[in-house]
Amino acid sequence: MNSNTEHKNWRSKLHEIIYEADTPKGKGFDVILLIAIIASIILVMLESVKSFDDKYHNFLNISEWVITILFSLEYIARIVTVKKPFKYIFSFYGIVDFLATIPKYLSLIFAGTHALVALRALRLLRVFRILKLARYLGASQNLVNALKASKAKISVFLFAVIITAIILGTIMYLIEGEENGFTNIPKSVYWCIVTLTTVGFGDITPQTPIGQFIASLVMVLGYGIIAVPTGIVSAEYTHSLKNNDNSSEEDIPLNSQSCGNCLDDTHKDGAQFCHKCGYQLYNE
Amino acid sequence: MNSNTEHKNWRSKLHEIIYEADTPKGKGFDVILLIAIIASIILVMLESVKSFDDKYHNFLNISEWVITILFSLEYIARIVTVKKPFKYIFSFYGIVDFLATIPKYLSLIFAGTHALVALRALRLLRVFRILKLARYLGASQNLVNALKASKAKISVFLFAVIITAIILGTIMYLIEGEENGFTNIPKSVYWCIVTLTTVGFGDITPQTPIGQFIASLVMVLGYGIIAVPTGIVSAEYTHSLKNNDNSSEEDIPLNSQSCGNCLDDTHKDGAQFCHKCGYQLYNE
Amino acid sequence: MNSNTEHKNWRSKLHEIIYEADTPKGKGFDVILLIAIIASIILVMLESVKSFDDKYHNFLNISEWVITILFSLEYIARIVTVKKPFKYIFSFYGIVDFLATIPKYLSLIFAGTHALVALRALRLLRVFRILKLARYLGASQNLVNALKASKAKISVFLFAVIITAIILGTIMYLIEGEENGFTNIPKSVYWCIVTLTTVGFGDITPQTPIGQFIASLVMVLGYGIIAVPTGIVSAEYTHSLKNNDNSSEEDIPLNSQSCGNCLDDTHKDGAQFCHKCGYQLYNE
Amino acid sequence: MNSNTEHKNWRSKLHEIIYEADTPKGKGFDVILLIAIIASIILVMLESVKSFDDKYHNFLNISEWVITILFSLEYIARIVTVKKPFKYIFSFYGIVDFLATIPKYLSLIFAGTHALVALRALRLLRVFRILKLARYLGASQNLVNALKASKAKISVFLFAVIITAIILGTIMYLIEGEENGFTNIPKSVYWCIVTLTTVGFGDITPQTPIGQFIASLVMVLGYGIIAVPTGIVSAEYTHSLKNNDNSSEEDIPLNSQSCGNCLDDTHKDGAQFCHKCGYQLYNE
Repeated sequence: MNSNTEHKNWRSKLHEIIYEADTPKGKGFDVILLIAIIASIILVMLESVKSFDDKYHNFLNISEWVITILFSLEYIARIVTVKKPFKYIFSFYGIVDFLATIPKYLSLIFAGTHALVALRALRLLRVFRILKLARYLGASQNLVNALKASKAKISVFLFAVIITAIILGTIMYLIEGEENGFTNIPKSVYWCIVTLTTVGFGDITPQTPIGQFIASLVMVLGYGIIAVPTGIVSAEYTHSLKNNDNSSEEDIPLNSQSCGNCLDDTHKDGAQFCHKCGYQLYNE
Repeated sequence: MNSNTEHKNWRSKLHEIIYEADTPKGKGFDVILLIAIIASIILVMLESVKSFDDKYHNFLNISEWVITILFSLEYIARIVTVKKPFKYIFSFYGIVDFLATIPKYLSLIFAGTHALVALRALRLLRVFRILKLARYLGASQNLVNALKASKAKISVFLFAVIITAIILGTIMYLIEGEENGFTNIPKSVYWCIVTLTTVGFGDITPQTPIGQFIASLVMVLGYGIIAVPTGIVSAEYTHSLKNNDNSSEEDIPLNSQSCGNCLDDTHKDGAQFCHKCGYQLYNE
Repeated sequence: MNSNTEHKNWRSKLHEIIYEADTPKGKGFDVILLIAIIASIILVMLESVKSFDDKYHNFLNISEWVITILFSLEYIARIVTVKKPFKYIFSFYGIVDFLATIPKYLSLIFAGTHALVALRALRLLRVFRILKLARYLGASQNLVNALKASKAKISVFLFAVIITAIILGTIMYLIEGEENGFTNIPKSVYWCIVTLTTVGFGDITPQTPIGQFIASLVMVLGYGIIAVPTGIVSAEYTHSLKNNDNSSEEDIPLNSQSCGNCLDDTHKDGAQFCHKCGYQLYNE
Repeated sequence: MNSNTEHKNWRSKLHEIIYEADTPKGKGFDVILLIAIIASIILVMLESVKSFDDKYHNFLNISEWVITILFSLEYIARIVTVKKPFKYIFSFYGIVDFLATIPKYLSLIFAGTHALVALRALRLLRVFRILKLARYLGASQNLVNALKASKAKISVFLFAVIITAIILGTIMYLIEGEENGFTNIPKSVYWCIVTLTTVGFGDITPQTPIGQFIASLVMVLGYGIIAVPTGIVSAEYTHSLKNNDNSSEEDIPLNSQSCGNCLDDTHKDGAQFCHKCGYQLYNE
């Protein structure tokens, strides 16, 4: 674009590929990364299926090593290309990326079984990287504003649901008693949440007429109060839509560059310097 | 209506009956077609009921042949009356209509059993023809606009639901383990979706206190986040209603003619030529 | 109020008590009627409870005769006080009132058991009389308008839900098969409705991995599309509220008089003549 | 603040700590009270868990005595510091506070078991004190207004749900009968509420084809009518938000002082005298 590009060495080029999504190479890298993450999730899932693991153990093992090495290389590349590596290492994504690589290496040291499944599951955390894509799907600022405005009220609502569940759960424990599956208050409260939220597993059900009557009240209550959070979000979002009617969806910056210095990735389209630390951004 | 009508030969008359719904004959044809489709759906359903099939096998067999022959004749008539038959044959409805006729013929060749049920089920696809009726029920443009505006946000939402289900499902697998029915991660994720969506089959339920506690969180979460898609659709539709307040429902064209050349059926009321290809429409 | 009141004989006085609710006597009659209806519903319910019926058979029998005779007297009084008895007899409420009185008399003729329960249940129909009270609870015109405006769209929606259930039910039948409880297509469609509506009984559940995967899609779909009818009603009601902002709730006529001639009961407050047939209303 | 503060003796200082939340000491007291209430709820819950109670019986017993004595001291302090003690004693919170302290003392007199659990559960009532916190979570006046405006309509709706459940429950009882679990009408109505509210325990499920067909109708109905209360709250809240657009959330008074005379706690920020009885408020 201008003389700034002359600064580019292999590190800055690599940075552009890894951290940005608006150049062809950067997009390509992101797509490959996405596929690798989804593949790793599917691998963790399949490995837990006994019958599948018995048949294709070698295939799963090799695939996991491939994924692990890929993730490791990516992790090293991310550290190398960032100007302040420690900031990346101790950032949220830095920790997630690290935790996603170690399970397979640890499996060499500890040959145990169940604890390692938990470790391998850590790789699932990488799905959070996918969340970055949400930006492209048009999640407008309006919805975010509506949810922010609703947060406090929905907290009050959920809090009220929990108190209701505790009180009604205790009442059900006293009415139904241990012989009908309501063995203790925590279990009764669990049943009450199952019922209030209209999930209704049916593993515990009231057997006495009075218990069934109170259960009916709980259900109708649960059915009625769902209207409250829904109404709040609807109203706040309608409000938000009206107030921001002029601001079109296109106002959302699609610039996905992240600063080589402070890792911030909320730059305006066409920005040349980081708006947080003033570090020069790599533009083509 | 004017001299154009002199062009009409039997083909154009048949076209009018089959493809249009605003002449008495066209309406009659549509009603008969609708009844035939519903009858064919009921037949497929009844045939799968063992006790019924044993008793009335002959009746079902003959009825199916009648329906199949009717559908075949209609299919041939549609090909004959359209100017560009291949365009119809490879259109969505063309393929559906074809797939709806073949199962019974194939049953003569293959006398197998289970695979044929699947084939016969293809006839169900014809229900999509009924969807054309939606237009008459007053599904206003406002609702369609609201759903279009909501699409991206609802996709983000469903995507978030699936990621949540994967993460929470894995946690539940680690906590509950195989002895409590959470035999593998895919099954745990399935359980998590069952719970998040408040369906709650109860075929798998948490047994440990910690599992029940996390299940409670999943339920309250599922109960709370239902507010998001509902809020989005409400708000977008309210917005859409307000913006289109002047446009009354009557603006929806009721003209159901479809062009004999390009099959387009979104002409304005009283249109004389196709607005897409300029081909003359058959008006009375 | 004026000379009109001189016309009042015992019939017109009785008419006022029975058909109107804005005089002290009329209100008293309505309250007694309401209590009798609720009592009769509770009696029908209790009678079906074996253990209760065994103990208190005589009490139930006598109570039912009392209620039946009360209802019979009221039915006769309604016929006598109305100017056009046949209009009442063949009106909706007339038929309901008649059906509510006969079961006990028929029980003298037919001493059978199960068929009579069905007959006795007819008395439940009288609950519709309670619906008249809805007017006093502030069910504003806005809500009724919103529901009317939503009717067509909700029909389309429910229609789409049923078609979806038929198609997905058939797919599940083909995948899961008879060995997993999906014994025939109607049962599969029933399962699909149970799942789509997030009821989730759990009497039939998918057992194969593919079945569970499709079930997950059905659940997420059901969870998502609930937003559509909710959004429609919310938006239409918001719209209705906005348009009628000036019309306060007090505009709802509380006049509950019904015309002695044509039974219409939607008169304005203070009306002296029926707005439908011109017949003089009984005012005090 | 001014000469008023000279009036302060130990009683007024204690009053300020106990009844107010806007001084450091008052806040500290509220936080300790909150922790004590939550601890007492957890204790009641844990005590009902057999395995836990067997192991840690002494710990639970001592903890309960500590909590009980704390609550007792607080109760006495509240009585002493209020000018009109009887007004407090017979107020809602006064009764709740009293009931929360007595169970443990009564356990000395009655050494029975089950009845005492019910007594101990009374301590749960103290959770209502937590509700005072709702004010700080931003539950704006708008939401309260919306719920008030919706109350009558939601009552009508719930009433309609119950009548529908009674009628459909009776129909299901007649169709399915005792052999399929619908042993009597109250149980059928219970099943119908379970289904209408989309809870779906699955303890009772229809077995006959006709029963399953009607159950499907009930489910679709329940799925559809959830839109009504949700739509009402959404619309009323949207309406409320629009009308109060100018009034910001900050208008909610955060002054939590309660009058030493009449216990009213809805004073304006900076108020010096009670707006109900004119009694001087304790300000620093």
